[in-house]
Amino acid sequence: MTVLILTCEQDVTADMVVARLHERGTPLVRFDPADLPAEGALSTEYVRGEFRGYLSTGGRVVSMDGLRSIWVRRPGEPAAHAAEPSAWLTAESGQALYGMLECTAARWMNAIGAAARARLKPYQLRLAHHSGFPVPATVITTYPRVARQFAEQYRHVVVKAVSGKPPGDPPMDLPTTLVPPDTDFSNVAAGPTLLQRYVAKRADIRLTSVGGECYAARKVSEPGQVDGRYGDTGHSWKPVDVPPRVARAVERYKTLAGLAYGAFDFAEDAEGTWWFLECNQGGQFGFIELETEQPIAEAVAHWLGSTAEPE
Amino acid sequence: MTVLILTCEQDVTADMVVARLHERGTPLVRFDPADLPAEGALSTEYVRGEFRGYLSTGGRVVSMDGLRSIWVRRPGEPAAHAAEPSAWLTAESGQALYGMLECTAARWMNAIGAAARARLKPYQLRLAHHSGFPVPATVITTYPRVARQFAEQYRHVVVKAVSGKPPGDPPMDLPTTLVPPDTDFSNVAAGPTLLQRYVAKRADIRLTSVGGECYAARKVSEPGQVDGRYGDTGHSWKPVDVPPRVARAVERYKTLAGLAYGAFDFAEDAEGTWWFLECNQGGQFGFIELETEQPIAEAVAHWLGSTAEPE
Repeated sequence: MTVLILTCEQDVTADMVVARLHERGTPLVRFDPADLPAEGALSTEYVRGEFRGYLSTGGRVVSMDGLRSIWVRRPGEPAAHAAEPSAWLTAESGQALYGMLECTAARWMNAIGAAARARLKPYQLRLAHHSGFPVPATVITTYPRVARQFAEQYRHVVVKAVSGKPPGDPPMDLPTTLVPPDTDFSNVAAGPTLLQRYVAKRADIRLTSVGGECYAARKVSEPGQVDGRYGDTGHSWKPVDVPPRVARAVERYKTLAGLAYGAFDFAEDAEGTWWFLECNQGGQFGFIELETEQPIAEAVAHWLGSTAEPE
Repeated sequence: MTVLILTCEQDVTADMVVARLHERGTPLVRFDPADLPAEGALSTEYVRGEFRGYLSTGGRVVSMDGLRSIWVRRPGEPAAHAAEPSAWLTAESGQALYGMLECTAARWMNAIGAAARARLKPYQLRLAHHSGFPVPATVITTYPRVARQFAEQYRHVVVKAVSGKPPGDPPMDLPTTLVPPDTDFSNVAAGPTLLQRYVAKRADIRLTSVGGECYAARKVSEPGQVDGRYGDTGHSWKPVDVPPRVARAVERYKTLAGLAYGAFDFAEDAEGTWWFLECNQGGQFGFIELETEQPIAEAVAHWLGSTAEPE
């Protein structure tokens, strides 16, 4: 039984899991949908009620019957490497590939539909609240008046992207930023804007949940530091215990969202409370594992290579 | 309680349902995501565990608390009508809108995730088989050899698009076409190609399923006619009874796929068997209702306006 890893060529996080799977002797195929139909090939047949399918890449052939699990890591856009790429060829290739994969009995990390919904920030916040996490007051609005009232009410607010990094190559960084009290909010009308009460934090927390396993890491913040992803503070990520009520909330969140994997970001305030900021269903863990030596790649390899039901 | 209809400005099928909802006195808001953030506006707030959201368009405001149902008819791309449209603004606006709607208790026709999966043609064929429909032998392949063998085995085969019409404005028509036996299949390597055993049909069947209601229409085919969607044969759509085993298979299909609405296409062969060709989860029904006078718009309005659980 084979593990299928959908990702692009350069992916250090995937490399780490591939190494662990090799150690375990678990067969795997790494495939970039961008290579279909150039380097990769596929075939699906429905004949007299029988379904057969296979995918081939780099001389390896994997049968859909023999797929144990599918890791949707960082797949390229289907047909992006084709000799004559087009939106039409991307649609046809994506349909053929993902349609074929949806017909298998393989376990998904993460299932396509669940992942798409889990990317929606407003849905994340609601789910987090229902799961038992504290969530900072947040507004997403196209009304300048609403944005202004929110900023006046909470005084210290940050603005962040709703959907993640703006597209581009390389993608533009858009750090979470404090909004000065005298801000002119008229441009809010030009696009939905996310404002959130600023959590005065003493540390950033990154919690990586893999199946039933949870790994949390903590990085001390400099006073006044807003976005822990940017700027070197001299502090590094250190392993930290997961409080039981956080572990329970993580499990509830993942069950409600239908996720096997999630990378949770929290802000730890002066009282030690972990405030939910976001859950990135496809968040990478390489940088955390390198600094903390937490065995996250091993946990992913274990989940992918296991025949048991998802925990 | 209000019905939200997500569709573009010109949509005759939506007009028909709007007329029925007006007759029933059911409040509704029609909204094109392309109008966000130009003509439309929205706001979502999470404050102290309370979720509030509203959407406004053309002077109407609808509260997310008061949403009864959401009909995803033919929505435009978010922010397409913005003063300065961009992929980034589309992502931000789509996140804000669909994320807000995913947080409501409204019933969906159809739910976003279920709709996305239900568009995958290979998944449709497998689901159809599991639901009890006869499905013509089909192959989707990038291997010229596999395509050639399939054509030799079944002799009469058709080629059709995997993903629907090629993009473009207006979209290019790509009718299902018979493949001559001496075809050169080498170009199959350039993109996944769908070949299907040709069903020698005496009629096309369009079955529209709305909640628990089923409406089937039949149009006699000219001998040798391959794609019933194109060309005037002088025959029109007539209502036809739904055989009980087809009705059961439709229910199973929709339950497995998580769909409230589906437009099923069948080919009726010389023995009267209805062969499953596809299920378009967003298929229009206006042309069928106009020719058959089947009350499909009324059924959609009833489903959207009802407070009962989906049948």
